[in-house]
Amino acid sequence: MAKIGVIGAGSWGTALSVLLHNNGNEVTVWSIDPGEVQMLTEKREHEKKLPGVKLPEDMQITGDLEGTIKGKDFLVLAVPSPFTRATAKKMNPFVAEGQIIVDVAKGIEESTLMTLSRQIEEEIPQADVAVLSGPSHAEEVGRGLPTTCVIGAKTKKTAEYLQSVFISKVFRVYTSPDILGIELGGSLKNVIALAAGIADGLGYGDNTKAALITRGIAEIARLGVKMGGRIESFTGLTGIGDLIVTCASVHSRNRKAGFLMGQGRTMEQAMEEVQMVVEGVYSAKAAKKLAQQYQVSMPIVEAVNEVLFEGKNPAEAVDGLMMRASRSENAAMPWEEE
Amino acid sequence: MAKIGVIGAGSWGTALSVLLHNNGNEVTVWSIDPGEVQMLTEKREHEKKLPGVKLPEDMQITGDLEGTIKGKDFLVLAVPSPFTRATAKKMNPFVAEGQIIVDVAKGIEESTLMTLSRQIEEEIPQADVAVLSGPSHAEEVGRGLPTTCVIGAKTKKTAEYLQSVFISKVFRVYTSPDILGIELGGSLKNVIALAAGIADGLGYGDNTKAALITRGIAEIARLGVKMGGRIESFTGLTGIGDLIVTCASVHSRNRKAGFLMGQGRTMEQAMEEVQMVVEGVYSAKAAKKLAQQYQVSMPIVEAVNEVLFEGKNPAEAVDGLMMRASRSENAAMPWEEE
Repeated sequence: MAKIGVIGAGSWGTALSVLLHNNGNEVTVWSIDPGEVQMLTEKREHEKKLPGVKLPEDMQITGDLEGTIKGKDFLVLAVPSPFTRATAKKMNPFVAEGQIIVDVAKGIEESTLMTLSRQIEEEIPQADVAVLSGPSHAEEVGRGLPTTCVIGAKTKKTAEYLQSVFISKVFRVYTSPDILGIELGGSLKNVIALAAGIADGLGYGDNTKAALITRGIAEIARLGVKMGGRIESFTGLTGIGDLIVTCASVHSRNRKAGFLMGQGRTMEQAMEEVQMVVEGVYSAKAAKKLAQQYQVSMPIVEAVNEVLFEGKNPAEAVDGLMMRASRSENAAMPWEEE
Repeated sequence: MAKIGVIGAGSWGTALSVLLHNNGNEVTVWSIDPGEVQMLTEKREHEKKLPGVKLPEDMQITGDLEGTIKGKDFLVLAVPSPFTRATAKKMNPFVAEGQIIVDVAKGIEESTLMTLSRQIEEEIPQADVAVLSGPSHAEEVGRGLPTTCVIGAKTKKTAEYLQSVFISKVFRVYTSPDILGIELGGSLKNVIALAAGIADGLGYGDNTKAALITRGIAEIARLGVKMGGRIESFTGLTGIGDLIVTCASVHSRNRKAGFLMGQGRTMEQAMEEVQMVVEGVYSAKAAKKLAQQYQVSMPIVEAVNEVLFEGKNPAEAVDGLMMRASRSENAAMPWEEE
């Protein structure tokens, strides 16, 4: 049994708290919002963000950050990406030397182009930062549907320890040393999901979406490998796997926000309607900057930025992507002599 | 303008005939079934297989195989994989030296383990055999939704000629020299789609399906590369792209057959209910034999064979796949020294 502090009581934080509790661990959940603490303590269910999933009576929900962190075997950091750095800064005074923090959100900071684990390391240098990612909608994990994820950590020891705590009969956990590749896949997929959602909103079909997903993972991998990530992370669960689930699923906020924009809403209207943080909107600009910095062609990222921030017509953007001028699917493949 | 003979009037043959006609070509469609010829000639619509898509009045539908082949600039072969060899044998006497045949079906012959293009070449050695593949449900191509495909051919000249005839504003065509990789991706994906359908039928969610798709393309690529296909074909439109569309789509017969088996039907009952040829059932045994011959681990193919032909319980099969014992996602990635 481990003592675990979960920082953040959104859908993913809540689903993981229940999973970890069901695995026999002692879980304390922290929320910054006193109203949320009270609601969860009384109702034992997050009706808005994870309806139908009951929080066990002996799971403590609290607004006490220090108490959630101190003496815990490890922490799960589950706040949306725009709040990760600020939350880490507040956590710093309470985090022990070598204490493990598993970040489960995804995103890239626009101003620094740092992934979340780097931001956390900068704010809490004494922590041993790991990540959890993979095709894992919170709603389905909450319902106990079979799910696979990957733990990325700096050492095999930390990775295998976390694996042993998270793993269950319906939650399969693999380990990987490629934290950067895992994080880039997890962040950039949200931008592609916006594009897939836009195509759906325009009334296009599965053929169009499959093409966008295929091209999407190719451009994510081109950038990610150049930045030092491993190709295996992009072709695996944390890359194409997570991208597929995000683009296909009715649960995905990024897909839904894109869908609404494809139907004619502005970015602001779409975010208002989705009511939760749409990470892809935050990652889109960062992705574009990274593409420029590493001189990688990322046409989908480019098009999503144009729709989000430059008022480009969504139909024109998707048509432009589908109708690009390339001729050979992969110019590197040789032809027979004629 | 090209003169084109389309052999086979199923959903894909019909959708491509309409596309090629709309591109300004003269298209003749052949069916082996006199009732189908009469029905299509009179109704100008394949109500059962491609409802809502009108066949233009000046498109000839015929039972005359010789007339469909002779004098044509190229032929499209669009019969289900179990009938490809026999159809090719019948075509042979009418095919000119160097006449191009574009095969658009997918499958592997169980007795010879040959892909369709090889079977056609064996039966019609004088033909220049090419293939067309990609994420392209006939129903959506018929409705003019944006779609991307790849033409594989032995020479760049043939590939670019076909590209110029098939390409349209909503049907984007790329070229590739990797006929084998394209065909293996197209055939083996149907086996994975059966597994994805089974998971859906069991009531599992998008997390499970994304895991199966991710693992599925990995095992297809392992085999395909060992057989001489190019990795780019498996990570591209004809590999992961086609796999995604097949596993996600309500149009896929393979997914639907799997879905029915997940709900408790036998393989025979599922095929009866789907009413069209379920290619994956034919390819599953061939895939298993290839895995043995090339000594490649293909756990999903293995499990699908057990469900199809050995009466294994579908829930046990999927649970077995999700809960496999591997620990590290990719054993080749190095860890930092501890």
